[in-house]
Formats: sequence, structure tokens, C-alpha cells
Amino acid sequence: MGKQTPQESTDKVAANGLINRRHLLSLSLGGVGMAVANTVLGQELQIPSWSRMPGPGPSAYGNRSPYAENMLRLIYNTDPLYPGGGGSRSPLQHLHGTITPNSLHFERHHAGIPAINPEQHKLVINGLVRQPLVFNYEALLRYPMVSKLYFVECSGNSGALLRQAEPDQSGTAQSLHGLVSCAEWTGIPLSTLLDEAGVLSEANWVAAVGADAASMGRSILLGKALDDSMVALFQNGEPVRPGQGYPLRLLNPGWEGNTNVKWLTQLKLTAEAPHFRDETSKYTDTLPNRFSLKFTFPMGTKSLITSPSGQMMLEKPGIYRISGIAWSGSGGIRRVEVSADGGRSWAEALIEGQLNEKALTRFSIPWEWSGGEAVLQSRATDNQGSVQPTRDTILAERGNITAYHNHCIQSWGVNTMGEVRNVYA
Amino acid sequence: MGKQTPQESTDKVAANGLINRRHLLSLSLGGVGMAVANTVLGQELQIPSWSRMPGPGPSAYGNRSPYAENMLRLIYNTDPLYPGGGGSRSPLQHLHGTITPNSLHFERHHAGIPAINPEQHKLVINGLVRQPLVFNYEALLRYPMVSKLYFVECSGNSGALLRQAEPDQSGTAQSLHGLVSCAEWTGIPLSTLLDEAGVLSEANWVAAVGADAASMGRSILLGKALDDSMVALFQNGEPVRPGQGYPLRLLNPGWEGNTNVKWLTQLKLTAEAPHFRDETSKYTDTLPNRFSLKFTFPMGTKSLITSPSGQMMLEKPGIYRISGIAWSGSGGIRRVEVSADGGRSWAEALIEGQLNEKALTRFSIPWEWSGGEAVLQSRATDNQGSVQPTRDTILAERGNITAYHNHCIQSWGVNTMGEVRNVYA
Repeated sequence: MGKQTPQESTDKVAANGLINRRHLLSLSLGGVGMAVANTVLGQELQIPSWSRMPGPGPSAYGNRSPYAENMLRLIYNTDPLYPGGGGSRSPLQHLHGTITPNSLHFERHHAGIPAINPEQHKLVINGLVRQPLVFNYEALLRYPMVSKLYFVECSGNSGALLRQAEPDQSGTAQSLHGLVSCAEWTGIPLSTLLDEAGVLSEANWVAAVGADAASMGRSILLGKALDDSMVALFQNGEPVRPGQGYPLRLLNPGWEGNTNVKWLTQLKLTAEAPHFRDETSKYTDTLPNRFSLKFTFPMGTKSLITSPSGQMMLEKPGIYRISGIAWSGSGGIRRVEVSADGGRSWAEALIEGQLNEKALTRFSIPWEWSGGEAVLQSRATDNQGSVQPTRDTILAERGNITAYHNHCIQSWGVNTMGEVRNVYA
Repeated sequence: MGKQTPQESTDKVAANGLINRRHLLSLSLGGVGMAVANTVLGQELQIPSWSRMPGPGPSAYGNRSPYAENMLRLIYNTDPLYPGGGGSRSPLQHLHGTITPNSLHFERHHAGIPAINPEQHKLVINGLVRQPLVFNYEALLRYPMVSKLYFVECSGNSGALLRQAEPDQSGTAQSLHGLVSCAEWTGIPLSTLLDEAGVLSEANWVAAVGADAASMGRSILLGKALDDSMVALFQNGEPVRPGQGYPLRLLNPGWEGNTNVKWLTQLKLTAEAPHFRDETSKYTDTLPNRFSLKFTFPMGTKSLITSPSGQMMLEKPGIYRISGIAWSGSGGIRRVEVSADGGRSWAEALIEGQLNEKALTRFSIPWEWSGGEAVLQSRATDNQGSVQPTRDTILAERGNITAYHNHCIQSWGVNTMGEVRNVYA
């Protein structure tokens, strides 16, 4: 204790400093530089000012510490000619665990946030059903609900890495990848409401439409709607926030964010795919032959190192905690591997919590930075065996004009100054 | 469809209207009064104002809907002679799922909230250790962490039901039981930090002390500290809120709230229990023989119906969703039963999400209110087989002067007007 060198106290599991993921949980960190002091306690420690007088008491609605208020969403793509459009990205580099606080959940709006009075909002189910139905908010509250953690990811997330030939030197986890968030969603299984309306045998699709001024609509496969889709009314315990669809949104677990229609007001059963405007102008995957793939619904197996990440600075050589998030639109995460040498050698990361299906999973691995150059990558494998691809693989498959559904391996370069930057590797 | 009567379409599983919990998930609700309309769609539905023009765009920090802003904590016990003291209760009747948003997590302070600068905060581990250690915030961020959902419950929660001979006619789920909340906590296993300090074999207890002006301290059994206790730095993804202990708190999963020392600044290993002031003046269980039980650490197996609950109003006879939360400080919830006739007959409720250990579990069951009188109760059983007791059982065990650790069955009376009130049954 206290005298071991890193070589004695750790076992390296991949090149350039990666340490066995179980190491820090099962053994001591003694001697590997963890800012500890063997001191005469009480002499060096002064009683801080905040321990000398009572502070403010309880409140009706709690706030963050002023020292944590720099954690904000990053607004993008707003344009006076496109009122209410654009979005905001979650500060992934500041978040830990798997849940995104509601105030920091990413947004993507096509005509801004409608100011819906829940008492006047309607949800219609019609089309190929035995009996068209109209629900109001209060009626929906009487239905049985389910509560589950699910991620939502915009299909345009991480698109810059495909669009831009050169890496974004100033990019952060937030600015490049912040269109993914995770919450406990509570809502009514859509199958319950569809059963009540009585879906006719000719129906194959559901046209889902929101109450925003864009009438944002998406085509949903009936099989999904009857599987795990829900009409979500609550998000992390409280009513769904206006920016996420208050009073209710469609939630198609694992599917591209845009299909989770916010401010949901209509579900129309159809025989053929309804083909909404945004399904041709957006959200398609281009191919090298100039054709495009439509209806890429489940988001790919993906992971991202959030710390260290772009714009961070390693102050000096020593042990760091590499931490990040992994997810798959097709189920759970089986494994996350981490590389410190640009993908030549890999070590298995520790999963820090539960392995939820179609939800963010937190991983970490200890890493000893020698002070030399490093390229940090993570690679997720989901429980279907699907492995996160490289950037080159995706570009080869889709040509150089694709921008949606990018789930490629992300690389953070560390230089000898300790600066961390987005790189392509 | 649409013509079935309740008798035809439901199967009753206990007296006074309780319906099989699987019913609403597996069958249709058609015909049981769910506010549906068989209408010519498009004629009766008007385009609402908020669908006619773009709304506001994305923002850096999201807010709630103005229609949901009535969900606030309820402040209690503040006193100018006791600056910063008192607490605030979570609005349980408005929350769904299992997570409490951080702004609504209950509080209980003994000298208010210290305004801690994390860069100056220290965590000391000393006493019976091989090497005393001091950690700062940045050093702690380098450690491996775990993320798990855990409830925290004040041991004084629901105490009014034991103290008061007559039920509180104006009591709500919040005012009577709102000192329980649940979050995803992310932090360092305490065993990791204790291993690094090197616990000596004579140590049996840990004295945990906070940096508030009350120097709030509690005695923690070493066995717990080495089991699942953590030094929590994050709560639902973001830094622990000041009201919950920013920048770090002790988290002893399942143990009474007060042991989860906020603003944690010292952990001192001792051979004997340190016996802090608040462990004699408060948090003991009185017994009929005038002795008191000390150190009742794990919170009892408990459940609570949050809807319908006190001060709610059933507008007319029909199907309602009875919903509530269940938890146990000793592990997971195996089963929740619901009664509509004051405990004479019971039906098993549906668990609406995952069965997490030492976390809130959401249950529900459909109930047809006939318009007559009813007494609604829930009864949890944990996976150790421990069953939630009646109020009479607890009063008989502890005499009539007990106030802490009340986990008795709660009764909500419904009268023929549909008014819901706290009753003793």
C-alpha cells in the first residue's frame, strides 16, 4: 500500500495504458497517484465558511448548485426564416449514470413547441379500425401504464462525422453527439389503445401525427406499434416536458428519434405506408448508386466515450477514468470494448449499472496516461451480436453524401500536451 | 365491443370492484366507460390555436408546462428559531413511474443547505485505518463508479399516522407520506475508498459527518459500508443537488434517510458506535416499556396508493386506475396486493416496470367504483417474505408514543360523494 508502482499494482489489458476493468473495484488504488495526503488531520483542514453558519432552508422547487449551472444544452440551427425550428444538444460530457435530467434532454423541433392546454388536447385513433376513438388527457390517465428506461436518439446525431472530410477540432461530446438522451418513460402500451379501437386485418401501418404547426408525421409499422410502442405521458416521474411533447408523445423504443412523434394527436391505421413529407426530404440513407434507403427505423449499435472527450484537458500523466455510454435500438448491450491506440488493441470495459434494453448503458475502464499520444475509442456489441462499425465502413457502404444513422466508432485524440480532440482514425 | 357491460368484460378478483390486474393489458376496455366517442372525425375536431402557428424554439435549459407547475414540494417545520431547519415533501400524488425529478426530491435539513464550493470541499477518511486519506472533488471523479436506482426515505415519514389518534381529514399522499423519493444515484462504492485507506481489524463502525452547520453525523455499521454504500456524486445524471448534499453525499441503500449523510466531509473508522446527538434525540423507536430501540437502519417493507389518494375526487362511478409505489429497505418487492374493502379481501396488483432492489416499484390495478363507500389499501411483500403490517400491529408493538419507521398499511376512504380521505382501518 502506498509504495506500489503502477506496474506492480495494475494489470494492463491492452496497449497504451488500459487497465483491467475490475482492478479499481476489487483492489486498492494505493500508490497510483490519486491525490491523497498522509497528513496530520485537523491541523491542515480548516473549517470552511459554509460549515460555520446555517444555510437556506427547504424550498418548493429545487435548483442546481451555482457551480453546476454551466451544464446547459447547446442550441443549433435556429433561423428566423424557420420559426421554432432547430434543436438543442445534451451536455453529455457533464452527465454521469444513464438518465438525462428533463431540463437537459435534447430537442429537435420542426415548428417550435406548441403551448398545449391538456384539457383541450385530443388523441384520435382512426382509419382501418372497427371503431374510431377520441381520447382526452383525463381518460388516458385511467389506463394501465408501463414504466421503462429508454433512450431517444435523433437519426441526425453524429452526422457531422460523415459529412465533413476533416474532423471538427473544436467538437465536444455535446456538439458532435448530443442528440441522444435517456429517461424513464411512463405511458400506455399502444397495443392497449389499438385493441380498443379494433385494428382491421387490412392495416399494416400507423400514421402518427403531432399537434405542432408542422403537423410532423411519421409512418410506423403496425408490428412495432403492437410490440413495445407506448403513448408516453410521463418522463422521469413528471409530466412529459413541452420540449418533449407535452402532454403526450409516441415512444417507439429504439427507433430513430423523429418517429417518437411529440404532441401526438392522431394515429391513423392504413394499409400502405403513408409517406410523410419528412420521410423523403429527411431521414433517408443515401447509397453510392444515388438511390436512398427509406425507413431505417432501429438506431444502430453505438457507444461514445464522454470522458475524456473533446475540449477536455489531461493535466498530467496518471490514472484516468475513461467513461462513456452505449446503446442499441435493437435491444441491450452485451459488451463495450475500449482502445487507447486507435483500434489496434482492445480491452473490455466495466458496465457500471444495469443492462437495460434500448436504454443508455454506462461503461468505464481505468487508463494510465503515460503523457504520450493516444487515440481513445469505444466499440459496443449488442445482444444480437451486432458490432459498432468504423467510420470507413459506413462511408464505404453509403458513399460520401450520407448524414443520418451514423453509429460509427468515435475517436478522441490525446496529444502530448494532454489536449483531447475529435480525430478520424 | 362497445356493448359489453362491465360484468361481461371484466373478471373481478376481490370484493368491491377490483379487477384482474392483467385485464387492461390483455383485453379491450371497450364499453367500460372510457370517454370515447364514435364520431365523424374531422367534423367535430377543430384545429387548436397551437397547431396554427409556430411555437418557441429550443432552449438551453428546459422548463415544465405551465399546466404542470402546480407540482411542488410542500415545505414543513420551518422556524425562525431553527434557521435552515425543516423539510419539504415530494408531491407523490402527481408523480408516475418510479423516478423523482431532482427539483422535487424531498428534503430534510438540520441547519440549512451549505453553499459548498466543490474545489474547496474535502472528504477525509481517518480513525482506525492504515493510512488516513483526504480526497478532493476532482480526485473522486477519477474513481470507478456504479449507477443504480435507490429510494431514500426519511425515518419520520408517515409518522403522523402513529402520533395522531384521529386521521388527518385533509391529509394527502404528499403531506402524510411525501418524505420518500427515488433517483438513479451514481457514485464510488465506499468499499473502494475504505480499501484504499486500509481498514484496521479493530474497526466496526464508521462515523459519517456532513459539512453543514449542524455537523450532522450518523453511526454506520462497517458491514454496510463495505456492502453497498456509496459516495454519491450524481443524481439522475447531473451533480447531486445542493438540497441532496452537493457536491457529495453518503448513500446507504435502503437505510433510513438520515444515515445518507449529505455534504459528506468525514468518515472516521471506530471500534464502538460513535453515538451522535441525533441518534438519541431523534430516530429511535419507543417501546411500551419506556425503553427505546436505537439503530433501526433498514426501512420497512411499505407501499402507498398515490391515486386515488387524499383530497382527490372521483367524479362518477366507473373504472379507475389504482396506482401506487412500493419499496423495501431490505431488497426488492415480490408482490403488492390491493384491497377495496378495508383489508377483508385482497387482489394482486400489476407491477408496471422493473423490480429494482431498494428502489421504488410502481404498481397498479383497475378498479370499478360502484358509487358506494370503499376503503382502499395496499400491502407489499418484499423478496425476504416480509409483509407490510397494519397500523394496529405497529402501535401494539411500540406503544402509542412512537413516530419513526412507520411502514404500516395506509387506508384511503372513499365516500358516496367520491371524496377520498385518509382514514384508519
